[in-house]
Amino acid sequence: MADSLRNVEAFVFDVFGTVVDWRGSVSSALRELNPNLDEDWVAFTDEWRQGYYRTTRNIAGGGGGSTNVDVIHRELLNEMLKTERWTHLDDQWDDQHRKKLCLLWHNLNGWPDTTKGLYALKKKAIIGTLSNGSARLLLDMAKHADIPWDIIFSGDILNSYKPNPKMYLGAAERLSLTPDKVAMVAAHIYDLRAAAGHGMKTVYVRRPTEDVDQQDSVKPKSEGGEVDVVVSSFVELAELL
Amino acid sequence: MADSLRNVEAFVFDVFGTVVDWRGSVSSALRELNPNLDEDWVAFTDEWRQGYYRTTRNIAGGGGGSTNVDVIHRELLNEMLKTERWTHLDDQWDDQHRKKLCLLWHNLNGWPDTTKGLYALKKKAIIGTLSNGSARLLLDMAKHADIPWDIIFSGDILNSYKPNPKMYLGAAERLSLTPDKVAMVAAHIYDLRAAAGHGMKTVYVRRPTEDVDQQDSVKPKSEGGEVDVVVSSFVELAELL
Repeated sequence: MADSLRNVEAFVFDVFGTVVDWRGSVSSALRELNPNLDEDWVAFTDEWRQGYYRTTRNIAGGGGGSTNVDVIHRELLNEMLKTERWTHLDDQWDDQHRKKLCLLWHNLNGWPDTTKGLYALKKKAIIGTLSNGSARLLLDMAKHADIPWDIIFSGDILNSYKPNPKMYLGAAERLSLTPDKVAMVAAHIYDLRAAAGHGMKTVYVRRPTEDVDQQDSVKPKSEGGEVDVVVSSFVELAELL
Repeated sequence: MADSLRNVEAFVFDVFGTVVDWRGSVSSALRELNPNLDEDWVAFTDEWRQGYYRTTRNIAGGGGGSTNVDVIHRELLNEMLKTERWTHLDDQWDDQHRKKLCLLWHNLNGWPDTTKGLYALKKKAIIGTLSNGSARLLLDMAKHADIPWDIIFSGDILNSYKPNPKMYLGAAERLSLTPDKVAMVAAHIYDLRAAAGHGMKTVYVRRPTEDVDQQDSVKPKSEGGEVDVVVSSFVELAELL
């Protein structure tokens, strides 16, 4: 039993990478939707995702920009298709096709343990998203991947982006919980550092696509590290409680 | 098939009275928690509920006050216990007991059709709350009554109270839908009139505790009335789709 999680009443989850496999889901769908094109769709997906990450970090830090994830994905896609590597696709993808591609980010598949682990956790605590995605994207994804969230906290519900404090403190406030009774679950150490900075408990999940160079060095406090718990799946997390 | 609901992608629900039986749930719990008192707990519950309704209407109209439902219930309870009818209870209920009584409003039971009807609807459309309750209260209630909401819209998520326009338009915006693709479901005609005023579709549900003097006169547009659909249960609504 994880002592440090004993008083936790709610678990809030980062979604992209932590709950769903964005790289596998989007790159496979790009391949299916463009059967005549022979591209490195994993590289395409990674670049798109990097752009999203850059944009939301900028907004979280006070920069301007849309908080609608579809708008951001569309702007990034248009920009990518003007760069040397992908410009040959610019003429081939019309407005309708680009819209369809942006919506791929709504239908990402969970990791193999996601559905089973979250149903188990839901029986023991409140579970919700705490994601930079939009509410609509997160609920579409929950329906697609069979995820039984109790509540959705998103960029457009809390009017900011992680790691802005408004996200962590706003979620705890709406849960009527002090931050120490809420655990942030993420595959990104930056997210957990911000959550811990506001008094939340922290659960680090190792995922193959996330924090690739850092994840082996993340340790629980019981081993001298900085997070409360490290797990490799949500099933493992549910069993700890 | 209800033609007027053909393009609806999301149903948002009033909760108190529409989804859950507040009168039966709270009055029964009051009786159980105060076994030595012989009071008219239904009358007590009705008065408490009327106070809540009055308070939220006042705030929706621009008046000041807390948007935390627990705080409001506590203030109202304290006020009631200073009135002639209930003052004999004032000395008997200490702080801890009053806290417990206020939390009764988190654990209301659904109507007999609620769980079955909402599971069926969830397969066909997005379902969410659009309630003046707080997020925490609504999620506690969903766990208690087994309600699989896709999303929770509450007073403290949208920062207002119905019938303020921010509630209806804010929900549609976060669903990335134009209001005509969202249907408001309620047992209160005032709520549906406000929703229709912002372009939403309307589903009126007849419930024994709500709109008692008015519900028989509410008719669908097909019969010259003002709402899109009138039903007596959520199972009936799911079957219309």
